[in-house]
Amino acid sequence: MFGFSFRPRKNGSAQTAKERLQILLAHERAGGTSPDFLPTLQREILEVVRRHMEIDGDAVDVKLERGNELSSLEINIELPGPEKLADKKKN
Amino acid sequence: MFGFSFRPRKNGSAQTAKERLQILLAHERAGGTSPDFLPTLQREILEVVRRHMEIDGDAVDVKLERGNELSSLEINIELPGPEKLADKKKN
Repeated sequence: MFGFSFRPRKNGSAQTAKERLQILLAHERAGGTSPDFLPTLQREILEVVRRHMEIDGDAVDVKLERGNELSSLEINIELPGPEKLADKKKN
Repeated sequence: MFGFSFRPRKNGSAQTAKERLQILLAHERAGGTSPDFLPTLQREILEVVRRHMEIDGDAVDVKLERGNELSSLEINIELPGPEKLADKKKN
């Protein structure tokens, strides 16, 4: 039922320089009467992450599932790889 | 390896009035050279959540695991149940 799991990193050269951040949220509501605030949390958490790193808009993949008792939010973010950061340090 | 999953709700009367919010973060670092910012994210995300709901300090359970290539953070928060909110509305 509560099926969250990390998606395995794809094999291949396109993935070697990539890092990723995955954020999973689940709100379990007893009776389903409390407000559903996951969409708001999604926006605010992305703002928090952007304070620490530059994120390309295309690099964010969001899945929101809303149910009566359980709502879940999955955010997958591809980050610039360390090679890019290392290049910056050299200059 | 990437073993995140929701802990099942415990059976019993103590759980019936409780809601919960679970937040899982995973930072997969290619090569492990980029900064580890999960502890900072943890603090900031909890601030974001507190904007929307009152959280008792005792109700927050945090597990941080730091590895060379994968760091993960699990935050479990017990929230006041809807019965409490419903009582407030009656008065």
